[in-house]
Amino acid sequence: MGEFDLIARYFTRPTPRAALGVGDDCALLQPKPGTQLAISSDMLVEDRHFFSDADPFALGHKALAVNLSDLAACAATPLAFTLALALPRADDAWLAPFSRGLLALADAHGCELIGGDTTQGPLNICITVFGEVPVIRGKSQALLRAGARAGDEVYVSGTLGDARLALDALRGRLKLPAGVLAQARQRLERPEPRVALGQALRGVASAAIDVSDGLLGDLRHILQASGVGATIDTSIAMNLLAASAHPDWAEGIISLENQLTCVLAGGDDYELAFTAPAAARAAVQAAARQAGTPVTRIGHITAAPGLQLMDQQGNALTGNFSSFDHFA
Amino acid sequence: MGEFDLIARYFTRPTPRAALGVGDDCALLQPKPGTQLAISSDMLVEDRHFFSDADPFALGHKALAVNLSDLAACAATPLAFTLALALPRADDAWLAPFSRGLLALADAHGCELIGGDTTQGPLNICITVFGEVPVIRGKSQALLRAGARAGDEVYVSGTLGDARLALDALRGRLKLPAGVLAQARQRLERPEPRVALGQALRGVASAAIDVSDGLLGDLRHILQASGVGATIDTSIAMNLLAASAHPDWAEGIISLENQLTCVLAGGDDYELAFTAPAAARAAVQAAARQAGTPVTRIGHITAAPGLQLMDQQGNALTGNFSSFDHFA
Repeated sequence: MGEFDLIARYFTRPTPRAALGVGDDCALLQPKPGTQLAISSDMLVEDRHFFSDADPFALGHKALAVNLSDLAACAATPLAFTLALALPRADDAWLAPFSRGLLALADAHGCELIGGDTTQGPLNICITVFGEVPVIRGKSQALLRAGARAGDEVYVSGTLGDARLALDALRGRLKLPAGVLAQARQRLERPEPRVALGQALRGVASAAIDVSDGLLGDLRHILQASGVGATIDTSIAMNLLAASAHPDWAEGIISLENQLTCVLAGGDDYELAFTAPAAARAAVQAAARQAGTPVTRIGHITAAPGLQLMDQQGNALTGNFSSFDHFA
Repeated sequence: MGEFDLIARYFTRPTPRAALGVGDDCALLQPKPGTQLAISSDMLVEDRHFFSDADPFALGHKALAVNLSDLAACAATPLAFTLALALPRADDAWLAPFSRGLLALADAHGCELIGGDTTQGPLNICITVFGEVPVIRGKSQALLRAGARAGDEVYVSGTLGDARLALDALRGRLKLPAGVLAQARQRLERPEPRVALGQALRGVASAAIDVSDGLLGDLRHILQASGVGATIDTSIAMNLLAASAHPDWAEGIISLENQLTCVLAGGDDYELAFTAPAAARAAVQAAARQAGTPVTRIGHITAAPGLQLMDQQGNALTGNFSSFDHFA
């Protein structure tokens, strides 16, 4: 199978919304008047972002999911994406399920594959995704990192830490009951980008980011961009580990400190962390209901810089919850 | 040096034209009303697209040049690009010249680096580039592959085959005089995308493609998309090898058949192959002058499908001039 057969067989699809899809030197998009185009790129590398024996269907899903998650964090509506793929060889047993996983998620979000590149090389998946953000009376509705203000409240969507828990178990660093591992592994391999929530938070949230490197590290990007600090209630955050609510979970499977590390610094969560004014509490909950995604208030923004962790009694916690850095 | 320092040090620049550049979950572009966005992605892999000891400045240049070449082939004006980079390690001695080569070409074309990704992994450079194409009275001014008509004439810009000649010499398959190799190597390592020519050909050319895999293979994409054939005069094409005009060139350095193979199937040329009606000859030459890029008429489009090669006497040539396929 040659390069062009490969593209035709697995990656060429009708693109009714794009002006031109796969098959020319460029794809063409014609954004609606009064909109901005939101653009994000993510690259997934074998042994770094996934195991070499990873299920290709799940990998196709995840490669697009992590990109859609960036659109979600900007409150953008997905439009289209390009796929650049380096493959050791053109292998139907891998390409067929990979493209099915990729395109199933694309279809679920109305996101069209409009172009890309294929080449021979160590497995590398690079997706660039395009979304649409309305501009209303000259003001972009994109949610940025820089909008948090003192007094705002801090929220996260869904659950946190289970992807890290699964990763630690798969690496043999801890043992989990089979049912717990299966559930956690689903979070690691099949993250669901919070696209509907991002859009529902337009005009409600003041700042947002997607949690990819770990909650605290990603939250720090909001604090830095906004020039503020935050206080986080760890007794609430702690319970965001979905595994700890699983029927087969038992105390002592991991230490409480490790549980907190999974939640605060786990990474690979693809939830949204966001801030909103205290007056917007009801609007935040309405957005969460509309999107079908629960959100939890875990703290508040302070004028003083820095990130404070508090326990249930309001005492400051110390601890080194570093987030993921590809070159640290 | 961590991931965020690396991005800040080498890849964060002012982006006066983009609504939002590097540093949030997405970048934001606001296309001008009445324009389409042209989008293309190219991935460069070590040992496949470049030698592992490649000069990083030249590599930065080339990684963007091959993408700009796709914009040129669609007659788009460069706007912005994203860079996804997998690196074995964060190494200043490599990153500094790489980013200088990349951004020098970006500046020359007013193309802003607006986002991307960095990760640890085998060296892989994936760029997605964005350009603008006007839409006039509802008609896109993009040059596509599908517009060639019987009777149109076939042109190529600049010179062809020197990149392949240099590659063969660097791989030890042939010996070249030092001056010839230096000139040919420049074509391999520092291709100049024909961006000005592409734009000048709006409304003049009927179809276009950039020559990346080899003239004949790329021309076949135009023929296939347009449902036509072509006849190419090899006695004209043959002289497009710039090396053959070098003062140190001598007959017998390579066989005439190999010379023709370099020109017709060499690849890595990043010239434009395009078609235009016979009535547009003067307009084509005016566009070439305006862009400062010479173009050569090498044949014509036929209603009958297939690609015929003719020698100076008008006799049909046979020969297997396959172009590059990453998985063949």
